[in-house]
Amino acid sequence: MTDRNYNPAPSELAYVPFVSVDNMMKNVHALGVEEFMMGIAKYIEADFLRWETFDKKPRIPAHAPQGVIELMPTSDGETFGFKYVNGHPGNTYDGRQTVTGFGVLSDLSNGYPVLFTEMTILTALRTAANSALAAKYLAPKGSTTMTIIGNGAQSDFQCLAFKAMLGVNQIRAYDIDADASVRLARNLAGSGIDVTICKTAEDAIEGAQIITTVTADKKYATILTDNMVGPGVHINAVGGDCPGKTELHRDILLRSDIFVEFPDQTHIEGEFQQLDRDHPVTELWEVYSGKAEGRVSDRQITLFDSVGFAIEDFAALRYVRDILPKTGYFEKLDLLADPDDPRDLFGMVLRSAENKNGAAA
Amino acid sequence: MTDRNYNPAPSELAYVPFVSVDNMMKNVHALGVEEFMMGIAKYIEADFLRWETFDKKPRIPAHAPQGVIELMPTSDGETFGFKYVNGHPGNTYDGRQTVTGFGVLSDLSNGYPVLFTEMTILTALRTAANSALAAKYLAPKGSTTMTIIGNGAQSDFQCLAFKAMLGVNQIRAYDIDADASVRLARNLAGSGIDVTICKTAEDAIEGAQIITTVTADKKYATILTDNMVGPGVHINAVGGDCPGKTELHRDILLRSDIFVEFPDQTHIEGEFQQLDRDHPVTELWEVYSGKAEGRVSDRQITLFDSVGFAIEDFAALRYVRDILPKTGYFEKLDLLADPDDPRDLFGMVLRSAENKNGAAA
Repeated sequence: MTDRNYNPAPSELAYVPFVSVDNMMKNVHALGVEEFMMGIAKYIEADFLRWETFDKKPRIPAHAPQGVIELMPTSDGETFGFKYVNGHPGNTYDGRQTVTGFGVLSDLSNGYPVLFTEMTILTALRTAANSALAAKYLAPKGSTTMTIIGNGAQSDFQCLAFKAMLGVNQIRAYDIDADASVRLARNLAGSGIDVTICKTAEDAIEGAQIITTVTADKKYATILTDNMVGPGVHINAVGGDCPGKTELHRDILLRSDIFVEFPDQTHIEGEFQQLDRDHPVTELWEVYSGKAEGRVSDRQITLFDSVGFAIEDFAALRYVRDILPKTGYFEKLDLLADPDDPRDLFGMVLRSAENKNGAAA
Repeated sequence: MTDRNYNPAPSELAYVPFVSVDNMMKNVHALGVEEFMMGIAKYIEADFLRWETFDKKPRIPAHAPQGVIELMPTSDGETFGFKYVNGHPGNTYDGRQTVTGFGVLSDLSNGYPVLFTEMTILTALRTAANSALAAKYLAPKGSTTMTIIGNGAQSDFQCLAFKAMLGVNQIRAYDIDADASVRLARNLAGSGIDVTICKTAEDAIEGAQIITTVTADKKYATILTDNMVGPGVHINAVGGDCPGKTELHRDILLRSDIFVEFPDQTHIEGEFQQLDRDHPVTELWEVYSGKAEGRVSDRQITLFDSVGFAIEDFAALRYVRDILPKTGYFEKLDLLADPDDPRDLFGMVLRSAENKNGAAA
């Protein structure tokens, strides 16, 4: 990539570190997937603790009948980051991912990108890390058993994050597609987690302190009905994450203490869309910083209504930026024009041809 | 880049065509810089002719004391594009570009990017192409002499675009930094353009049918005063392109017929910020489509108040996408996770480690 057939070669300023899908996987394996998610969680927690320094913009969507592309920018005043993410439910029919993404982190003081990376895998990691982080504050102490309803692409990451960060070692898995549960159990074999495949959602919630819902259907669904949820559990509601897509019966919300990332966004995208905007919810950053309480009683139902927020991606990008010097798993992209004289961009173009002609002569 | 040490190799779906700075220069030389700008101009004109199909969003800025990073998205309902661009006036002090950029074009029907490219050079090309395109409709017929005030990074591109698209072959150059004019003349040597370096702006406008202002100072400036502008000229005002940055005395605006890309944006960023929002201006897309008139008399002063609009970047991205199969000057980036089973992202990560371990064993 860095080979050029003319001089002068671009300076280091021209290059942007790039993490391909292959290198993202190498980074994950270099550190271990659990360690990697714990690292992201630490960065998310640190960024939530300085919540008020962030410029919290709404997502910028472009809609088509088949799906949406969104840009999710944020900034802490020193660093700028954004994620590009699509959501196209029909994509799997022709072998594409429903959700893919990439992201950029930049130095706001000079505008230059410092990281360009795939974010399909990274988003899966940060979503699970974010769920487990919230559960550290909200789930019953000593939780070891988690139900996971919806055993698709996000479920493995959720189980491993909860193992790494909370010590969960019993998973009760349910999916309307039994093959999905078998796949999950196979992927978790050897991880130190026992997986019990359950035939019904009711069976799956037996004895669990934590219930994670992470189904994929883009509609109003009722994965959990009110009578299924007993006192004291923590619900990690991940799948209801866009307008028109929810997983929980409204009555569960009314019995729960609801924790959210950013209320304005959650009210559009999360389970919270089933309630009035003025229904009381607690912001996670307030819990992490001690301004609000997390779990306060053994019988309380806590609900993390997860939708995914730009600051979590920002934290994940910061984490990746910081590990790259250690792992070395990145390439350098020749992305930024770097003329000798910044006022002479055309001269750079011109001389690149002269040098090529010279080399060919 | 496409080398992987495990199987299966990612399918073609995983890759996104990437145009580095080096490859952008090779693409430009493969076609010729003038041909390249004429090509972009054709795409801009085509996109302006279907103006109403575009989703015209405002730029999304992130500000710092040193400058700004902006995302500029747009969509025609089938294709989505955005540009990342920074503006940091102090960057040249440590050898960085004031303005750099990159862009992405995506298929909105599945959300997958189809092009990722540098846009520092491409923006310079599209800005000049856009100026010359507007001048085709607005400048006096048979214009051969152009004044260019401000002889920095954009000036060469402007001169060549006006040569290619209007037949301008006499350039009268002025810059407060005489070295900049010498640089411009040197870069244009052999291009078929005669460059006359002028000692004052007044001298530079002598006998010109077109006056291009493209100075870089980020402030309210008066590059042209009212008495300098005679009847019949076309003013191509490129440098006044952000809040607080203008180049022309307000009285010139009052004597001119003003043409703009998108009035709401121009009123914030262009010379138009000196006038009330309800001052009459004509939108270029209306001129191109015959809904409004361009130049109607020999004595009329026409003014293109250029600020740069997302649809121009979109057109430039489309143009680059379309020439790549012919030139072949691009790489393939492994940007999109592409598991065999789209529901088994973790399995892909898991197996990548197994195969690596296998290879090492």
